[in-house]
Amino acid sequence: MAALFGGVEGGGTHSKVVLISEDGKILAETDGPCTNHWLVGSDKCLERINEMVSEAKGKAGASPQVPLRSLGLSLSGGEQKEAIKKLIEQLQTRFPQLSENYYITTDAIGAMATATDHGGVVLISGTGSNCKLINPDGSEVSCGGWGHMMGDEGSAFWIAHQAVKIVFDCLDNLEVPPHDIAYVKQAMFDYFQISDRMGLLTHLYRTFEKSKFAGFCQKLAEGAQAGDPLCCHIFNKAGEVLARHIVAVLPKIDQSLFRGELGLPILCVGSVWNSWEMMKEGFLKVLSQARRQELHRIFSKFTLLKLKHSSALGGASLGAKHIGQALPLDYTANVDVFYTHSF
Amino acid sequence: MAALFGGVEGGGTHSKVVLISEDGKILAETDGPCTNHWLVGSDKCLERINEMVSEAKGKAGASPQVPLRSLGLSLSGGEQKEAIKKLIEQLQTRFPQLSENYYITTDAIGAMATATDHGGVVLISGTGSNCKLINPDGSEVSCGGWGHMMGDEGSAFWIAHQAVKIVFDCLDNLEVPPHDIAYVKQAMFDYFQISDRMGLLTHLYRTFEKSKFAGFCQKLAEGAQAGDPLCCHIFNKAGEVLARHIVAVLPKIDQSLFRGELGLPILCVGSVWNSWEMMKEGFLKVLSQARRQELHRIFSKFTLLKLKHSSALGGASLGAKHIGQALPLDYTANVDVFYTHSF
Repeated sequence: MAALFGGVEGGGTHSKVVLISEDGKILAETDGPCTNHWLVGSDKCLERINEMVSEAKGKAGASPQVPLRSLGLSLSGGEQKEAIKKLIEQLQTRFPQLSENYYITTDAIGAMATATDHGGVVLISGTGSNCKLINPDGSEVSCGGWGHMMGDEGSAFWIAHQAVKIVFDCLDNLEVPPHDIAYVKQAMFDYFQISDRMGLLTHLYRTFEKSKFAGFCQKLAEGAQAGDPLCCHIFNKAGEVLARHIVAVLPKIDQSLFRGELGLPILCVGSVWNSWEMMKEGFLKVLSQARRQELHRIFSKFTLLKLKHSSALGGASLGAKHIGQALPLDYTANVDVFYTHSF
Repeated sequence: MAALFGGVEGGGTHSKVVLISEDGKILAETDGPCTNHWLVGSDKCLERINEMVSEAKGKAGASPQVPLRSLGLSLSGGEQKEAIKKLIEQLQTRFPQLSENYYITTDAIGAMATATDHGGVVLISGTGSNCKLINPDGSEVSCGGWGHMMGDEGSAFWIAHQAVKIVFDCLDNLEVPPHDIAYVKQAMFDYFQISDRMGLLTHLYRTFEKSKFAGFCQKLAEGAQAGDPLCCHIFNKAGEVLARHIVAVLPKIDQSLFRGELGLPILCVGSVWNSWEMMKEGFLKVLSQARRQELHRIFSKFTLLKLKHSSALGGASLGAKHIGQALPLDYTANVDVFYTHSF
């Protein structure tokens, strides 16, 4: 059997594995649950990865006993060097037949490696959020990505949290809500299957699951679609704060990234981007304001891209590159333009 | 041996037990760690309570095998009826020699029962925060108290979190900080014993302990004492948001509570009140603004009180009252006035 190269996309809610041949062909794909080691712990994270890869080996007609040449993991929460080192050591010890080599990087880097090898800005808004600039020289600048305890602004978790907090503060008479809370309050009771606010405490503490809490965002997206003013307000705010991540890295962007045909390429990753139309106004407002500053005149156009394939592909490509093997990826086939704006 | 009545003050960081005789005399006291069942789980919460009470029985010269007549628990996190019912059932099953009867209420109600039986407003700012109005007719109105995931505004946790968030956002270029972050950043590295922001992730997620995180507030109080502008700014904001809890319940306060000699009595509970001088300006600003509204003209004076004894006393009193036994408490000996303001 020819050499197999694996890639993992590990998210806060869903994960994906791909196996690729030396000539860049996708031989198998499998899906799985959350593999963010901060959220589920490293033991569970690694077991889930091993299961998904084994299943994929089967689908590709390969023996689960024969290790992959390399496995590149693009993980949400894959930032901290010490933690990454430990994860790789555990993979080698616990699952010797999984892969010969490992490479772990963040979800942002894996996504970018799926779309291009020229750099750009990745703006993730899934369960959590994160923004990473990758300049053509490979240098990186981050904004956010610290998880729900320290922000995750503009993510599904953040949107769900904003909505719940507005309801709580209104009922406490602590804050006047920007719009009537009736729809959001009822949607909250329905989604969490509770009859009063006390019922939410267990979802926030004892049985807290970030992806479950963040899942409430979907109900808010439906509310916004149906025109509920409070839902629309929250998505507009999400658009604003996501754009502020771009503004944060703007001073560090290599000038060449503004000069391509697309203007600044922004790779948008995560399910919250399905609600782009509801976030657009806030997003454009913040970028237009930033653009007006002297410093940022070169920022005359931007293009929002989304991936057509899992960033597990980019993970596989980086994993192979790490052992000196270049997998041929057709970058243009991997992305779609979904919005372009010129100032 | 005469009948013993027990009381527990259960906080997010520390706890206390008192044993009282029929004539209201304190016979024994013991201290212990966090007994918030949302934070440590109900098993650990109940074990800690049992240990503390057993130790107190020993100190009082009573046998740990002889149950108390009643045990009244004043617990942070003691709000939800279903959870309370389960805690009592578990106490009865697991520790049959602990007490004949149980009564569980919130930290706010226990504190108020230590200070007066006429009602007032309790404003807690310890590890977490909470505000409860108790009217002379016994009716209650709450604001806050939903824990760190849903606010805890003005608490030690909140103050610590605000500080850390300002540092993160500044370093991310996401927000311009209101003042230089140098002191707070270094204090954060020192307190959490980390060398970069990545090091904080384990304190926020894998090994998260609310009381440990909230403990950083003490370092910020020291910074404010020493005049660091960012620390002062954060405590001022804490004063504002704590006052907004009073404003939230203002419309529901029985008019008679404004007419006493002290004006509105506000019972301040928790260690953050040790930093009152740093919160005063913000606190007064918000209450003065509220006072200017037509509706609140009757609000012409308020007095801040603090307890001289643990609210375990109030817990014991409520526990005894629940079985028809009135313990004589000298309320005036239980409180100190630490601030009075007339508009």
